[in-house]
Amino acid sequence: MSAINPENWLCSNRVVRFGDTDAAGVMHFYQLFRWCHESWEESLQSYGLKASDVFPGCRNIGDDPEIALPIFHTQADFFKPIRTGDYLSIRLLPTKIDLCSFQVQTTFECSGDLVATSLVRHIAINAQTRKRCALPHNIDLWLEASSVNAQPRPL
Amino acid sequence: MSAINPENWLCSNRVVRFGDTDAAGVMHFYQLFRWCHESWEESLQSYGLKASDVFPGCRNIGDDPEIALPIFHTQADFFKPIRTGDYLSIRLLPTKIDLCSFQVQTTFECSGDLVATSLVRHIAINAQTRKRCALPHNIDLWLEASSVNAQPRPL
Amino acid sequence: MSAINPENWLCSNRVVRFGDTDAAGVMHFYQLFRWCHESWEESLQSYGLKASDVFPGCRNIGDDPEIALPIFHTQADFFKPIRTGDYLSIRLLPTKIDLCSFQVQTTFECSGDLVATSLVRHIAINAQTRKRCALPHNIDLWLEASSVNAQPRPL
Amino acid sequence: MSAINPENWLCSNRVVRFGDTDAAGVMHFYQLFRWCHESWEESLQSYGLKASDVFPGCRNIGDDPEIALPIFHTQADFFKPIRTGDYLSIRLLPTKIDLCSFQVQTTFECSGDLVATSLVRHIAINAQTRKRCALPHNIDLWLEASSVNAQPRPL
Repeated sequence: MSAINPENWLCSNRVVRFGDTDAAGVMHFYQLFRWCHESWEESLQSYGLKASDVFPGCRNIGDDPEIALPIFHTQADFFKPIRTGDYLSIRLLPTKIDLCSFQVQTTFECSGDLVATSLVRHIAINAQTRKRCALPHNIDLWLEASSVNAQPRPL
Repeated sequence: MSAINPENWLCSNRVVRFGDTDAAGVMHFYQLFRWCHESWEESLQSYGLKASDVFPGCRNIGDDPEIALPIFHTQADFFKPIRTGDYLSIRLLPTKIDLCSFQVQTTFECSGDLVATSLVRHIAINAQTRKRCALPHNIDLWLEASSVNAQPRPL
Repeated sequence: MSAINPENWLCSNRVVRFGDTDAAGVMHFYQLFRWCHESWEESLQSYGLKASDVFPGCRNIGDDPEIALPIFHTQADFFKPIRTGDYLSIRLLPTKIDLCSFQVQTTFECSGDLVATSLVRHIAINAQTRKRCALPHNIDLWLEASSVNAQPRPL
Repeated sequence: MSAINPENWLCSNRVVRFGDTDAAGVMHFYQLFRWCHESWEESLQSYGLKASDVFPGCRNIGDDPEIALPIFHTQADFFKPIRTGDYLSIRLLPTKIDLCSFQVQTTFECSGDLVATSLVRHIAINAQTRKRCALPHNIDLWLEASSVNAQPRPL
């Protein structure tokens, strides 16, 4: 029974901006992948991880993380057009796949309608050798906390 | 003497995300222009304008705005490297240039350091004929309110 | 027995640019979707279609196309890191799904290694009503020509 | 009297793609900065430099370049709308500013009309200490060759 509300780190919102659209007047499809990656970064941050714990190139750190988390698979489904000014409710459902990999399913809703979903799978590798390795401990903690607290959602 | 604090619509914050960087480890330069345009959109929204008042292609409107506001000049200066996880304080200084055009100067600070500035100039045109016209009334109101309330800042 | 070599419109090349990377030193994942969409546009153009036949907002046309081709599903797999300066060989495999939809599978190779694949599915809709409709004739022609001429490739 | 035609490395072309536009139907302004950076990379490559000579993170190199070339100023002017399918002629005019810095002016023409210009200024720094240093020798060679051969153009 955690005092931390899972909504704090698995839910976020964003407003669709003009530069996200194309000449058909709707969101250009690959912006969704930017949004789901940024929502994942925001989730880690809200949970309490520092960017420098996870990503290379951050400020004020001696060394980059030893483990990198490249994406090996991603997919998205688009159900309704998404437009400039739309207020999106974003919900993340992270799942551990195995010792070395995890996935994040993301749903995007607008005014109660499901407008798009995405799925991104990451694998842990040693940043120097690029060989597969166990997930970093802090990502494991975030995955466990997210699984325990997340409301199951029927498909 | 407005009850509305100018900080509400001329200031915002953003966290630099991993996808904003390049292989040199720092923010890739043109992301700054995305940020300043998104901050401008956020400012209009915080002031009380609807996206559909200003931008074409929005939801639930019969017609697109009659006046478009294309950018005719933009510039930026970069003072310090900007990195993943940096928490940026963004401040807008909008100014009317003449009846048909305005500009927005934007400053980006990180931990009290000025890291970058940008300047974007927009001109009002009739969206159909693309001929120059007077700024829309709601943009004029935003410009006036922003000028009255904005704290003057020495260069 | 066409005089037109299918290589002319189903194959292209691109050099990975610095802005395509992130602070991990490799291509940031969603750039791949930009590349596969641009390769599709290039394929239509090489086959002989004009941009204004397919996309809204082009120059010198009275009206936008009546039929829009939004994306309803997309996915990608990433096999090896892709880096600045990499010379990619891109091959498209378009397939008609049904009267209203088609897909494009795209493979990205670097120095003979398969580095990534993508799949994008488009559906034809009336641009005004957004109701499903038959694919435009020129897209049907491109799909047929591509299927007839394309070399089958083992998975 | 060089056998190398300056056109080989200071001129290029690109077709505007659908994802470069926004819901106003024209190129979204900051894409121009992507184009001018990519044209610069293409120019270095056409002149004979390898990506790994200039940019960090490239394939098959032991070490990243010792000198980085971050951008400290950039600006652009937009004269006419740029649309999907437009065929752009791009011309670079590189100039050395001083021992440590250079700039590239870029013009974008469509059907003989000047549609946009950009200016990007780079400074050489030691990639580790981030202290100002002399431009790398290969960039100096490219600047000299470009200045000698480039046709002067009236403003």
